Amino acid sequence: MKNIANLLFEAKMLKEIPRSGYHFLGVGKESVAEHCFSTTFIAYVISLMEPEIDALKLISMCLIHDIPEARIGDLNTVHKKYVKVDEVKAFEHTLKGLAFAQNLTDLLAEFNNGLSMEAKLAHDADQLALILELKDLMDIGYQSPETWIQNVIGRLETETGRKIARAVMDTHRDEWWLDE
Amino acid sequence: MKNIANLLFEAKMLKEIPRSGYHFLGVGKESVAEHCFSTTFIAYVISLMEPEIDALKLISMCLIHDIPEARIGDLNTVHKKYVKVDEVKAFEHTLKGLAFAQNLTDLLAEFNNGLSMEAKLAHDADQLALILELKDLMDIGYQSPETWIQNVIGRLETETGRKIARAVMDTHRDEWWLDE
Amino acid sequence: MKNIANLLFEAKMLKEIPRSGYHFLGVGKESVAEHCFSTTFIAYVISLMEPEIDALKLISMCLIHDIPEARIGDLNTVHKKYVKVDEVKAFEHTLKGLAFAQNLTDLLAEFNNGLSMEAKLAHDADQLALILELKDLMDIGYQSPETWIQNVIGRLETETGRKIARAVMDTHRDEWWLDE
Amino acid sequence: MKNIANLLFEAKMLKEIPRSGYHFLGVGKESVAEHCFSTTFIAYVISLMEPEIDALKLISMCLIHDIPEARIGDLNTVHKKYVKVDEVKAFEHTLKGLAFAQNLTDLLAEFNNGLSMEAKLAHDADQLALILELKDLMDIGYQSPETWIQNVIGRLETETGRKIARAVMDTHRDEWWLDE
Amino acid sequence: MKNIANLLFEAKMLKEIPRSGYHFLGVGKESVAEHCFSTTFIAYVISLMEPEIDALKLISMCLIHDIPEARIGDLNTVHKKYVKVDEVKAFEHTLKGLAFAQNLTDLLAEFNNGLSMEAKLAHDADQLALILELKDLMDIGYQSPETWIQNVIGRLETETGRKIARAVMDTHRDEWWLDE
Amino acid sequence: MKNIANLLFEAKMLKEIPRSGYHFLGVGKESVAEHCFSTTFIAYVISLMEPEIDALKLISMCLIHDIPEARIGDLNTVHKKYVKVDEVKAFEHTLKGLAFAQNLTDLLAEFNNGLSMEAKLAHDADQLALILELKDLMDIGYQSPETWIQNVIGRLETETGRKIARAVMDTHRDEWWLDE
Repeated sequence: MKNIANLLFEAKMLKEIPRSGYHFLGVGKESVAEHCFSTTFIAYVISLMEPEIDALKLISMCLIHDIPEARIGDLNTVHKKYVKVDEVKAFEHTLKGLAFAQNLTDLLAEFNNGLSMEAKLAHDADQLALILELKDLMDIGYQSPETWIQNVIGRLETETGRKIARAVMDTHRDEWWLDE
Repeated sequence: MKNIANLLFEAKMLKEIPRSGYHFLGVGKESVAEHCFSTTFIAYVISLMEPEIDALKLISMCLIHDIPEARIGDLNTVHKKYVKVDEVKAFEHTLKGLAFAQNLTDLLAEFNNGLSMEAKLAHDADQLALILELKDLMDIGYQSPETWIQNVIGRLETETGRKIARAVMDTHRDEWWLDE
Repeated sequence: MKNIANLLFEAKMLKEIPRSGYHFLGVGKESVAEHCFSTTFIAYVISLMEPEIDALKLISMCLIHDIPEARIGDLNTVHKKYVKVDEVKAFEHTLKGLAFAQNLTDLLAEFNNGLSMEAKLAHDADQLALILELKDLMDIGYQSPETWIQNVIGRLETETGRKIARAVMDTHRDEWWLDE
Repeated sequence: MKNIANLLFEAKMLKEIPRSGYHFLGVGKESVAEHCFSTTFIAYVISLMEPEIDALKLISMCLIHDIPEARIGDLNTVHKKYVKVDEVKAFEHTLKGLAFAQNLTDLLAEFNNGLSMEAKLAHDADQLALILELKDLMDIGYQSPETWIQNVIGRLETETGRKIARAVMDTHRDEWWLDE
Repeated sequence: MKNIANLLFEAKMLKEIPRSGYHFLGVGKESVAEHCFSTTFIAYVISLMEPEIDALKLISMCLIHDIPEARIGDLNTVHKKYVKVDEVKAFEHTLKGLAFAQNLTDLLAEFNNGLSMEAKLAHDADQLALILELKDLMDIGYQSPETWIQNVIGRLETETGRKIARAVMDTHRDEWWLDE
Repeated sequence: MKNIANLLFEAKMLKEIPRSGYHFLGVGKESVAEHCFSTTFIAYVISLMEPEIDALKLISMCLIHDIPEARIGDLNTVHKKYVKVDEVKAFEHTLKGLAFAQNLTDLLAEFNNGLSMEAKLAHDADQLALILELKDLMDIGYQSPETWIQNVIGRLETETGRKIARAVMDTHRDEWWLDE
C-alpha cells in the first residue's frame, strides 16, 4: 500500500507546477493539476457526445497524461527544442511496485503513439483545454492570445475537436451565467 | 454546440475558486479544480485496485461532484450551518439544453444519495484528497492539520478508503522521489 | 472578555476571503476585509458631506455589514439564485454572550431592511466601493468591467450616491497623484 | 466633486500596499487596507465596551490613520530609523480643495499627538490589530512571532487595550467557530 | 564572518519587497531583487558593448544600488515628495564591521553623484530595466504604461542608453523565441 | 541592436520562472531572477574578500549562469534524472548575431567545466544562495529544510564557500536589523 500512497503524493505535485506556456504568453496562469482537470472533464464531455468510443480509456488517458511532469516539470514548445525527455523511465519509476503498472504504461504509450481514436480525442481534449483558456483571456480583453489560439486550433486532429473549438470561439466566456 | 461550450466555460470557473476550508485551517491552499483532479485521480487508482466496481461511473462521479460550485461557491462545514443550497436547481441550469443532461443529473443524485458502492468510494476519494493535503502539511511541519486529519479520516466509509488513508499516514510526502 | 477575542478573530477571517464577483469578472481581486475598509471609508466621506445624517450609525453599519461572511462566505448575485442564507442565525452565533449583542443585531437588521436614510447610504457606499474598483480596471485598459459598471450604478438609491458615482466616472484613477 | 473622487481613488491605493513588517517577520501578509479594517473594527468594539468615549471620533481616527501611506508607503520601525516623513504635507495634498479638509487635518493631528483618550485607544486598536495577527500565526505553529508579540503588547497605552490583549492571548484562533 | 552572513541576509530582504511603482501603474509586478538582477544584467551587456568603460565598477554599482532599500523600503517618485531618506546612515549600518566597507561606501556615493561615465550608465541601466517591463506590458495589451514609458525614456543620460531604449521600443517581447 | 533588445527580453523571462526545488521542499519560493541576483551578489562579496581572484569573471559567470533557463525552464536534481539538456544549443540561439557571443559562450563553458578558481567560487555562490534561503526558513520555524541544507553544504567546493556557509548557519536571519 505504500506504493499507492507514494503515487498519490506524486500526483499531488502537479498542483505546485505552473504551466510554463503562460510565462511566454504574459497573461493567464494555471497549475498542471488544473489543466489535467480541464482536459479530463472535456474528454468526459466528448465521451458523452460520442457513445461509440471507449469512455473509460479516453478519460483515463487524460487523467494520467501529465503525471510524468511531477518528475520532469512542465516543458513547452520552446523548451522541447533543447531538452530530450525520457518519459518512459520517469513513468517506470512512478509505477515501480504497483500491481497495475503495466496497464498504465500501456495506456500512456497509446496516448503518446496517438493512433487510436481515444488517443486522438485525448490529444484534442488537451488542446481544447488551452483553447478555452485563451478564448477566456481574449474575452477579458487581452490581445496576446489571438495569434496563439489559431496555432492551437491547427493542432486539433478530430472533427469532434474542431466542432467544439468552433463552439468555444463563438461563445462568450460569460454566457453560461448571464443567460440565466 | 453552444451548450457544450457553455458547460466547458462553467467547469473552468472551478480554477478560480479557492477551497474555503484552508481559510479556517490557516495554511495550505488549493483551487476547487485542483481538488477535483486529486479526487478523480484517487478514484481512478481505487478503480485499478478494485476491478469489480464500475470504474467509469466512479470516475465520472468524481469529475462532476463539484461542478455545482461554479454557481454556488465552495461551502465548507461551517458555512453549511447557515446556508441551504439548491444544488439540484443549480445543476439543472448547468445542464439546460444538453442531450446528456439526464445522465449527469442521475449520476450526481447517485453520488449525493451515497448508497451505491461507487458513491461510497467517490465520497472516500473526496476525503482522501483532503487527507493527502493535510498529511503533506504535517510533514512540512505545520501543527494545525493534526486535529483536522483525524476528523476527516473518521468520515471514510469503505475499507479501501481506510486502507489508503493508513498508507498515506505511514508515508512521508517525500518518499516517492527520495527513494529513487 | 473571551467573547471579545472571539469576535475579533472572527472579523479577521474577512481578510482570507476573496470577493467572489471577481472570479466572474475575470480581472481584479480584493478580500472582503479590503472591501469593508473601502465601504466604511466611503461612508465616512459621505457623512462629512451630509452633516444631517447619523454618521456613527452609517459608519457602524458599513463596518459590520459583511461580518456574517466569516461564517457564510462571500456569495454574489449568481450564488444567491441557488443559496438561501440564514444570516440572522449566523450573526446570532457571532454575537453570543456579548453585552452589546442586541445593538449589533438591530443595526444589521436596519441595514438589511434598507429603509432608513443611513441604511440607504450604507447600501450606496457598498456599491460605490465596487464602482471604484471597476472604474479603476477600466482606466487600466480592461473591457469586461464596462457592462458591469452600468448595472452597479443602477443599484444606487440616493442622490448623493449617484453624484459620487458620476464624479468617479469622470475622474481618471491617476489624477490624485498626477496632479500634484 | 472631483476632489471627492480623487480622495476615494487615493484611499483605494491602500489595498495595493503590503504591510512591510511581515517582510521582516518572514510569515504572514496583509494589505494596509486590511489592517485599516481590523484597526477600525477593533476601535468600534472598544467603543461598544466603553460608552463614555466619543465613538465617532475614535472610529474616524482609525479609518484615516494610514491614509498618508497612499503617498508615502508603509514604513515600519526599521525604516523609520533612516527616513523622515512629512506626513502633514502629504495629508494636505490629499485634502486639497475638500470642504472638510480642516476636520480631517485636526483629527489626524489629534491621533498623532496621542493625548486624548480617543487617540490613546486608537493607538491601542492599531497595536491590537497586529497582536491579533501574530497570535493567529502562533496558533498555526510559527515561532517567529513569539518575541515580537511581547514587544507589541508593551506598546499598549490603555487598560482596555491590555485587557483585550490578554483575552486574545488566552483564546485560540479557532474557538469562535469550533465552539458552535 | 558574522558580518558577512548579516550582509547576505540583508540583501536577501530585497526579494520580499515589491517595487512600489507598479501599485501606481495598476499592472505588472516585480521584487526589488528581480529589478536588481535586470539592472545588473543590462549593465553587463552595456559593458560588453563599450569595452572602454570600467566594467567591474559599472556592474558592482548596479548590484548594490538598491541594497539600502532593505532598511528603507522601495520609495518611488510620489513617495519622495514627502520623505527624506538618510541613505548614507542606512548603508553605514549595513556595512558596519566589514573590511571592505569603505569601498562600497565610495561606490554608492559615486553612483549617487552621477558624474562618472560608469555612474551615468548605471543610472541608464536602472531606467532601461523599467522601460523593458513597460514595453513588455504594452505588447501584452495594457494601455497604462504608454504615458509612463516616454517619461522614463526622457530620464536616460547616455547615447548608449538611448540606443538600447530605441531597440527595445522597436522589438516585440516575443521575438527572441518566436524567431527560432 | 535588435539582438541586444532580444537578449534583454530573454533575460527578463527569468522573473517569470519559479525555482522548482521549492515545489519539492513544500515551503519557500523564489524566481530564477531572484536567485540570480542572490548568487551574483554573493559572488561579489566573495570577490571583495578574495582580492586575488578575477572579480569581473566571477561576477559575470554568476550573472549568466541561469540565462539558458529562459529557453529550458528550471530543472532540479529530480528532473535531471529524466531529462537531457542541450544547453550549448540553447545558449547559441540566445547569442545569435551578437558581437560578444564568443565571450559569453566561453564564459558559460568555463563555468560548466568547473575547473578554474572563478568557476568553483561561482558554483559555491550558487549553492550559498540556496543555503541562505534554507537557513532563513529554518529560523522561521520550518523543519523540512533541515535535511536539505546538509546536502547543499556538502556540495561546496572551496574553503571560502564553506567559511561563509558556517557563518550563515551560526547567524540568525534577524540579526542584521535587530542588532542596530
